[in-house]
Amino acid sequence: MKEYFSIKWVDGTVRMLDQRLLPEEIKYLDFTQADEVAQAIKDMVIRGAPAIGTAAAYGLALAAINSKARNAAKLKEDISFAAKKLRASRPTASNLNWALNRILNQVRGLGQISDIQNQVLVIAHEIYEGDIEANRKMGMNALELIPDKAGIIHHCNTGALATAGYGTALGVIRTAYEHGKKIHVFVDETRPRLQGAKLTAWELEQLGIPYTVIVDGASGYMMRMKKVDLCLVGCDRIALNGDVANKIGTYNLALAANIHKIPFYVVGPTSTIDLQTSSGDEIPIEERPGKELTTIGTCQLIPEQTPVANPAFDVTSSKYITAIITEKGIINPPYSENIAKIMSD
Amino acid sequence: MKEYFSIKWVDGTVRMLDQRLLPEEIKYLDFTQADEVAQAIKDMVIRGAPAIGTAAAYGLALAAINSKARNAAKLKEDISFAAKKLRASRPTASNLNWALNRILNQVRGLGQISDIQNQVLVIAHEIYEGDIEANRKMGMNALELIPDKAGIIHHCNTGALATAGYGTALGVIRTAYEHGKKIHVFVDETRPRLQGAKLTAWELEQLGIPYTVIVDGASGYMMRMKKVDLCLVGCDRIALNGDVANKIGTYNLALAANIHKIPFYVVGPTSTIDLQTSSGDEIPIEERPGKELTTIGTCQLIPEQTPVANPAFDVTSSKYITAIITEKGIINPPYSENIAKIMSD
Repeated sequence: MKEYFSIKWVDGTVRMLDQRLLPEEIKYLDFTQADEVAQAIKDMVIRGAPAIGTAAAYGLALAAINSKARNAAKLKEDISFAAKKLRASRPTASNLNWALNRILNQVRGLGQISDIQNQVLVIAHEIYEGDIEANRKMGMNALELIPDKAGIIHHCNTGALATAGYGTALGVIRTAYEHGKKIHVFVDETRPRLQGAKLTAWELEQLGIPYTVIVDGASGYMMRMKKVDLCLVGCDRIALNGDVANKIGTYNLALAANIHKIPFYVVGPTSTIDLQTSSGDEIPIEERPGKELTTIGTCQLIPEQTPVANPAFDVTSSKYITAIITEKGIINPPYSENIAKIMSD
Repeated sequence: MKEYFSIKWVDGTVRMLDQRLLPEEIKYLDFTQADEVAQAIKDMVIRGAPAIGTAAAYGLALAAINSKARNAAKLKEDISFAAKKLRASRPTASNLNWALNRILNQVRGLGQISDIQNQVLVIAHEIYEGDIEANRKMGMNALELIPDKAGIIHHCNTGALATAGYGTALGVIRTAYEHGKKIHVFVDETRPRLQGAKLTAWELEQLGIPYTVIVDGASGYMMRMKKVDLCLVGCDRIALNGDVANKIGTYNLALAANIHKIPFYVVGPTSTIDLQTSSGDEIPIEERPGKELTTIGTCQLIPEQTPVANPAFDVTSSKYITAIITEKGIINPPYSENIAKIMSD
């Protein structure tokens, strides 16, 4: 297995694997400015809610270190300004807000420039390491839910690339595989950006886990053919009632699983639970450029001027979700009650 | 609107629009041999169950005309041999078998070479004209089912290109539009071959009917956003119990519509009803080359060696189908009873 990582802090620089080039090319980009990090998130150099959260935290660390401020108040202003830009890079993922808020809250009371600068980086590192640790815990928490010989449909990308490391839904698959379970992953290709076919397939290949890529429209067929025992997806935001925003196509998969009575599990750290969002209807859904449908890379699939709609995410109502797997444990329905409980623990 | 057609008999030649080049290029290919027609069907120069039926009929006409047979028995042998090759070109669509059987049955009793040759062509023309007429009737039969301002999801391609002319599901949309209904079509792009994004979008553009292309995974999201009033799809084979084989992704759409209580209509001529198939479980599902997922045209989307599954069709159980619209009328549940009734009329 090749070594790779989505993001790392290297000697005062944020290093990211350029996920837009995978699987053809493995190329790392170095960023030294918070603005560049915000742009990289927007351009999908890095993607996946937890990875975006970590990137935003390190972006803020760059802003703090680069600041020319001569006093603490001005430094906090610079950090706030950078946080605003980073916050605007992608609207749906809640880990981004969570990471930024966690840092902003912790430096609020500090009065020394060096203390603030140190603290921002310390917390960014904590977010990075905490994410990897949370992923490993989720893998273990879910282990009991994965049958010994399981056919699993997975949507989008949720592995080491989508997180600080190890992965959420793919982390669960990884843990099950490492524990000797004979699993087979049906990888939804995940149009329009093909994160499944390009990133998840690549990660499974590195890990030696058996898989088959299918078009998103084939998931119901695979269920009907009795090849599927469960579905695993990540999440970009979890509302307090258990509704989940995730990559477009997740909802269709959940509906097919529901009718086939196949368990549909959402995997994500509790940092994805947004205390400000009471239901899925309140989650803003990012509408991305139509070009993502009409082209792939340099390849023109259909005429540029074709009228298209390109919602990047959808919302799955909690009633179609069998359980939500977090680092603190498995959340079962009723979600409003059990999410409140886990968040107050 | 530009004039175009999927297939036509022109002075002893079968002329087909090469649908693989659309929408970038409009190019017609001429075929003079039954073998070439079989290969063109296999290679998807022409596609869509009714269009394939017509192509096979004209292919048989070429075989009859080109035969060097000196007596009727040998000519019938040549025709049977050609029919066998044409039958093997695509396994799922039932119109292909229907068209071939119709011709074979009608020439069985004839004893003169010229009579046989004439009759094959006469019936091929009848199949061609009958298909266009059936499509127009389906459009009228369905008119009452289409609300005045309807958001419609359409899967794959079912227009003039998929038939001898006018279209099945797209014919219904066309008739509704021609009758002044303000409709908007959400066009499933239909991976892997993008027949929706390439062919249906192109046909709607020619017809001036408003549309938006979406990825297949976005249909549930559009329903959740209350933008969809009904779904319309074509069909490749209808079993006697009302189960329907159609392009991969149809089943996922039907399941999403079912949960949202949105009408899901299948549109197809009664020639798509296969009297030999009692339920959808008996329908052979064509597995097409993996290359259709890994590439689009000359464009490599993901590495060639990626393990993929590429079922070209899926089966939708009749319980998820609101009604089947045929040229003989609308078939409502219970399907076993009502299909038997319409087929004996």
